[in-house]
Amino acid sequence: MQAIEVFSSSNNEANLQLNADGSLRHLLTLKGLDRSLLVELLDDAERFVSPSGGAAARSRSLAGRTVANLFFEPSTRTRASFDLAGKRLGADVLNLDVNTSSRKKGESILDTIHTLQAMQVDIMVVRDASVGVPAHIVRHVNDHVSILNAGEGDVSHPTQGLLDLLTIRQRKGKFEDLTVAIVGDIMHSRVARSAAQGLNTLGVGELRLVSPPVLAPDPDEMPFASIIDNLDDGLRDADVVMALRIQRERIGSLDGIPAIDEYFAKYGISTERMQSAAPGAIVMHPGPMNRGIEIESALADSPASAITQQVANGVAVRMAVLERVSRAMDAY
Amino acid sequence: MQAIEVFSSSNNEANLQLNADGSLRHLLTLKGLDRSLLVELLDDAERFVSPSGGAAARSRSLAGRTVANLFFEPSTRTRASFDLAGKRLGADVLNLDVNTSSRKKGESILDTIHTLQAMQVDIMVVRDASVGVPAHIVRHVNDHVSILNAGEGDVSHPTQGLLDLLTIRQRKGKFEDLTVAIVGDIMHSRVARSAAQGLNTLGVGELRLVSPPVLAPDPDEMPFASIIDNLDDGLRDADVVMALRIQRERIGSLDGIPAIDEYFAKYGISTERMQSAAPGAIVMHPGPMNRGIEIESALADSPASAITQQVANGVAVRMAVLERVSRAMDAY
Amino acid sequence: MQAIEVFSSSNNEANLQLNADGSLRHLLTLKGLDRSLLVELLDDAERFVSPSGGAAARSRSLAGRTVANLFFEPSTRTRASFDLAGKRLGADVLNLDVNTSSRKKGESILDTIHTLQAMQVDIMVVRDASVGVPAHIVRHVNDHVSILNAGEGDVSHPTQGLLDLLTIRQRKGKFEDLTVAIVGDIMHSRVARSAAQGLNTLGVGELRLVSPPVLAPDPDEMPFASIIDNLDDGLRDADVVMALRIQRERIGSLDGIPAIDEYFAKYGISTERMQSAAPGAIVMHPGPMNRGIEIESALADSPASAITQQVANGVAVRMAVLERVSRAMDAY
Repeated sequence: MQAIEVFSSSNNEANLQLNADGSLRHLLTLKGLDRSLLVELLDDAERFVSPSGGAAARSRSLAGRTVANLFFEPSTRTRASFDLAGKRLGADVLNLDVNTSSRKKGESILDTIHTLQAMQVDIMVVRDASVGVPAHIVRHVNDHVSILNAGEGDVSHPTQGLLDLLTIRQRKGKFEDLTVAIVGDIMHSRVARSAAQGLNTLGVGELRLVSPPVLAPDPDEMPFASIIDNLDDGLRDADVVMALRIQRERIGSLDGIPAIDEYFAKYGISTERMQSAAPGAIVMHPGPMNRGIEIESALADSPASAITQQVANGVAVRMAVLERVSRAMDAY
Repeated sequence: MQAIEVFSSSNNEANLQLNADGSLRHLLTLKGLDRSLLVELLDDAERFVSPSGGAAARSRSLAGRTVANLFFEPSTRTRASFDLAGKRLGADVLNLDVNTSSRKKGESILDTIHTLQAMQVDIMVVRDASVGVPAHIVRHVNDHVSILNAGEGDVSHPTQGLLDLLTIRQRKGKFEDLTVAIVGDIMHSRVARSAAQGLNTLGVGELRLVSPPVLAPDPDEMPFASIIDNLDDGLRDADVVMALRIQRERIGSLDGIPAIDEYFAKYGISTERMQSAAPGAIVMHPGPMNRGIEIESALADSPASAITQQVANGVAVRMAVLERVSRAMDAY
Repeated sequence: MQAIEVFSSSNNEANLQLNADGSLRHLLTLKGLDRSLLVELLDDAERFVSPSGGAAARSRSLAGRTVANLFFEPSTRTRASFDLAGKRLGADVLNLDVNTSSRKKGESILDTIHTLQAMQVDIMVVRDASVGVPAHIVRHVNDHVSILNAGEGDVSHPTQGLLDLLTIRQRKGKFEDLTVAIVGDIMHSRVARSAAQGLNTLGVGELRLVSPPVLAPDPDEMPFASIIDNLDDGLRDADVVMALRIQRERIGSLDGIPAIDEYFAKYGISTERMQSAAPGAIVMHPGPMNRGIEIESALADSPASAITQQVANGVAVRMAVLERVSRAMDAY
């Protein structure tokens, strides 16, 4: 398999995702998707949000379709979210957890994809640790197959980005009035990248990427955002604070990355630190959380937390995306 | 996570399971459930028993509901039984096999539960090696979620208990006329505990717990039962003999636990040993069996064996429990 | 478990598969199935083939039935194919991946089967590395259960054989006019055996088994085929060339088995080597492919390749088999 240069080819990727009429055929990245399409997806998803305690939203719009969840990286929550999204739309869902080592021993990823395509799988949800895999697949599937990126190395996790956008819109309204701070290991975070790209497209007022300098992104990568290393500076008057999961194996492993206690003291989001944020600010986290490391446990469970709302929105967003690419198939 | 003292908190647990009107909201333990509720559950289950070779009983009473099987301990048969029970009631079933080590690395069990709750999972079927986990979860879920205990450490396996009760009722009728002997590693057996609790509530004539002394329970734990170490004494005139699975790693490992051959000679249930039981006595086993260790292979396959009937009843009992907690949700 | 001598008992196995009226009750092997039954299965399967890009064929003929996929050997594609086949017929599908080591630790395979039977599983799809397991199971299940062999050691893979036959019939028409060459590790290939048995029954013009001498079958096993060790001799004027997967761990491990480069040079199927085949010859492979070892990558993707057609036919053939054994259940 040929890994592609994602940042250099990203406009290309954005185009790869769309049919000739501009409708969504695949979902690889939020980068390059235009504002109207993002808003339509959020509006679609809103229809699938149901009140906590109410019956889950359902439809039969994917009846007769087959969705395969092809996870080359382990996942519980994203896989479960896509699984439920597919089932609640009436699709047949095929779950394939294939670890990378067995893929290396066995056939190439394209042979796996072509096998599923021959079995008339309509939509393949792919998670892979290697950058460029979803776009590589997209270039080699038939006209009637859609690929959804469920997590790609450090670079893209578009349905996570959409659920973050939906949650912010529900809680905070107009993007142009908002200051959003994303805090943590920005450098290695596909969650941060997808959220940042979407927020930029939707015209967020101000976007801050807050991290220890050694975990900051390349300043040229997201020129629309400011890079900040002091947490209090980053949180000041912020309306939305997104804490990222820090991988424990990174902590203390590099010069400039503090040990656990020190990490929490310097970059952990807590009720106390949130006092410098704007009144009514919300806190978000993509999960799974390391409580007491990147986020204070009490804050995660407080009314300021939008974390379970994010999870609920995740199913809704995935239903919206599944339905939209399926509708585009019917048209072609 | 805080482990709770189960035996001291058990009345509390019984109360945790019920709605204000006394209907079943969760199923954590048979201890403390009253006789009328147990009988209703067995009557419900009876409706889902179909004759061997006939079509499986089905309904649509859980259509639109989502059941998640969350197994932190490996299981094939209990997971399959709940999976089929859910599907045959029309539910969407989400299977999550999460081993404990990955749970320790990742998020807390409550975060996993809250994630599933946010995805609008209605019923979570939980198996865990740690005592107190199901009750701990119950204390932290929303009003509209039900928790079913599918095996909890050494202390509780209520759907197994119900299927044992149903099987005994089908084969032997009135509990008050019966002598039941449970044989094997009583000390470590959640199966023995749940069966004993249910049999006690239903007024079994006599209950005997038969084991090597070193595997006997604390005499204060189940004062309604007699503790016996001689197998012939234990089986004498018994109407029902329940053999427990012995974990091979325990055999010969402790002072007082015999090696395999000796175990079978002293505590293995065989056609010959069953001659001291009552005429028409039945033999039961929760599976999977170690043939030739705790039970003679020929006996397990004889007409006296109710073992496959137990399995069939397992699906029926789980359908009954799923339907009952689901009905209670509708009412609230 | 008692392993049986498969080749000595094969007529017996063929009979085991049929009901008294000659209808298909189990599918263990193609050996001994008569021509009319094979043709009926291929005709049935043809109805489930849908054009690439069209909606997958579906029916509700297995609604209310339960299919369990019981794979004691790992598999992605065969398991996925049976999973989709069952779901597209409306069955409830239970997937159980049980590795052999856990089976050895736990209960016997028959206890597992009897457990599933008691749960009213109607059809069990079994893959196992040990020869004789499916027939052993068949001898011990109730009248209302069907067993489908999804891969049995080196000896049988009947649904793979059927999909190969269907693909050849679609691409090449009448079997009696055809020369078919199967190339690779014939000795260890259940795919080769099932294809050869089916081709023989359908009256193939000429069948050649091409391999390094050390991987050739016993000459008495398939007396209807010629055994050839020179690839060019094997391919000369062949209409159909089936490349087999070579297990990498075998390459270079035995006297007479060449190393990878040498294997491709001597036994790899390539565009160049195919020039000695008949005009319009097709190439097939059961997957997963080792590109560049047993088959040239470009050839696998060329119009001469029927490989993805084989995969598509796999789902259709499995739907046909599931429907046929299910229909026989209804009649009994």
